[in-house]
Amino acid sequence: MSLTIWCNTKFAEPAAQRLREAVQPHRLIVSANANASVLVAGRPDPTIGEADIAFGQPAVDDCLRHDRLRWIELSTAGYTRYDTDEFKEALRARGTVLTNSSGVFADSCAQHVLAMMLSLGRQLPQSLRDQLADHSWHYTERRYDSRLLTGQTVLLLGFGAIGRRLAELLAPFRVTVLALRRQTRSERNVRVIPAEAISSALAEADHVVNILPENDATRGFVNARRLACCKRGARFYNVGRGTTVDQNALLEALQSGRLGAAYLDVTDPEPLPPEHPLWTAPNCFITPHTAGGRHDQDEALVEHFLKNLAAFQSGAPMTDRIV
Amino acid sequence: MSLTIWCNTKFAEPAAQRLREAVQPHRLIVSANANASVLVAGRPDPTIGEADIAFGQPAVDDCLRHDRLRWIELSTAGYTRYDTDEFKEALRARGTVLTNSSGVFADSCAQHVLAMMLSLGRQLPQSLRDQLADHSWHYTERRYDSRLLTGQTVLLLGFGAIGRRLAELLAPFRVTVLALRRQTRSERNVRVIPAEAISSALAEADHVVNILPENDATRGFVNARRLACCKRGARFYNVGRGTTVDQNALLEALQSGRLGAAYLDVTDPEPLPPEHPLWTAPNCFITPHTAGGRHDQDEALVEHFLKNLAAFQSGAPMTDRIV
Repeated sequence: MSLTIWCNTKFAEPAAQRLREAVQPHRLIVSANANASVLVAGRPDPTIGEADIAFGQPAVDDCLRHDRLRWIELSTAGYTRYDTDEFKEALRARGTVLTNSSGVFADSCAQHVLAMMLSLGRQLPQSLRDQLADHSWHYTERRYDSRLLTGQTVLLLGFGAIGRRLAELLAPFRVTVLALRRQTRSERNVRVIPAEAISSALAEADHVVNILPENDATRGFVNARRLACCKRGARFYNVGRGTTVDQNALLEALQSGRLGAAYLDVTDPEPLPPEHPLWTAPNCFITPHTAGGRHDQDEALVEHFLKNLAAFQSGAPMTDRIV
Repeated sequence: MSLTIWCNTKFAEPAAQRLREAVQPHRLIVSANANASVLVAGRPDPTIGEADIAFGQPAVDDCLRHDRLRWIELSTAGYTRYDTDEFKEALRARGTVLTNSSGVFADSCAQHVLAMMLSLGRQLPQSLRDQLADHSWHYTERRYDSRLLTGQTVLLLGFGAIGRRLAELLAPFRVTVLALRRQTRSERNVRVIPAEAISSALAEADHVVNILPENDATRGFVNARRLACCKRGARFYNVGRGTTVDQNALLEALQSGRLGAAYLDVTDPEPLPPEHPLWTAPNCFITPHTAGGRHDQDEALVEHFLKNLAAFQSGAPMTDRIV
């Protein structure tokens, strides 16, 4: 059966060409408003009304309005705009499938977190600062400030595809991995903790990794009260969403030394304004929402979609299914 | 049987106290010339003449002169001064054991290399440079410059305790690990390559990790000819010894783009003089010989020695034995 696929993500060639060729004999509509940034909300587009499948960042209202849509694949891992009970119920009611592309970004996000953890452990930012400044050589200080990750405790706030991959990467370090998440079913090598045990888990963790998506339950989750529960000198990482953190409380925790360091890949807002105090807070390191980045992102997104297209047609289980 | 143990490493308390207490009932002589840096050659000290065991960095001539010594444990992983046929033969001839402390440093060195690899993959130095400069936000550029380590090829020049640990840490990344080393016996998850295959291995590797110790066979090993074999854009790491690299050739390889980046923890000389061109070479990142560093180094060195002391007394196999 020939389907109509609508797409509003602007892929670089040759990923765009691969998509055009591989979806045949289906019809492909590329939205006139297609956007190269997967983080930007798509604008409404009447052509989606002809589609059975939407791929990219379709406008929420378009998805709700056009009940011909039988499957929506988001080109991101985050899906804040779509993460409401109303939206998910509406899709469920009419049998529309919702998937995201978290499988494309999980490995890079996990590697980003581990890069951040190990960099702090090995004092790499401090050495780079010396190199950029005066070429000074702080052998003894840097050596004795270095920390092994081996045997430490890592608390993951949120546990999905990224957390699962991070736990795999952490396995050879013999760390204790604790994870807070909605479903409390257990995972291999990971101790899933219930929400009410968060305070004691925070007190135990050497590393607190925030991978929370943004929704009504997570906004401002990392607040002053929770930061006060952290072990003194703990390291905090954020590759979830900036809005899940009270940034004033984070700033205070860094200034007081409650947190030994923070490594933020996401902030609120983004870009973080140049005058924002987090840029110069003690031991606060910021990357510009690059945790998911990979040079082959477009190819990987297209392959993820094509794999799911085959599954959709054959009735096989689809990857990264949300609804 | 009571033994006399001579030590010329100055440990911080409480590691020093732990050593004093745990060696009882043996006699402990702490050299008047004890040095806190494990990289500095120990000065000759006549009190070593009373010792059965030397721990630290005994002067080579002292070791040769005093044939009462039955076991020497070096407080470092590197052992250039002792790595001559003459020295090792002399010990062998009189049945003196030589061990080093590579087990103490292997995990930190391996984590340092992985930190360097992942940092380059995730563009962390570039983002830190932006943060230290103008707080600019290079979302698209950094994302598409990011590289996954997954599936890449890593060539280790030298393969001992550090390489073995690094191979463990790399396992979840499903990389291909090639290793060049003196003994060609095979290793789990590592393809040991013979010396004559080095050119093709260099051409295959995305990451070339130099862990070579310094000796007559390795001095200047990474030279212009070998660098010219590298895959264009390959990344080079050095946690071995600075003298195993022709630094002028390295500089040229960075300037020409043959090497995409270099991360050096060791240089020749050390400290690297502030005016040395490697400090400002393109994509060259330098740490001040901190790869082995760990905040609990002194405790770990003492525990390594005590474990070997027990083995020495009972006749069990000793850890990190060289002769």
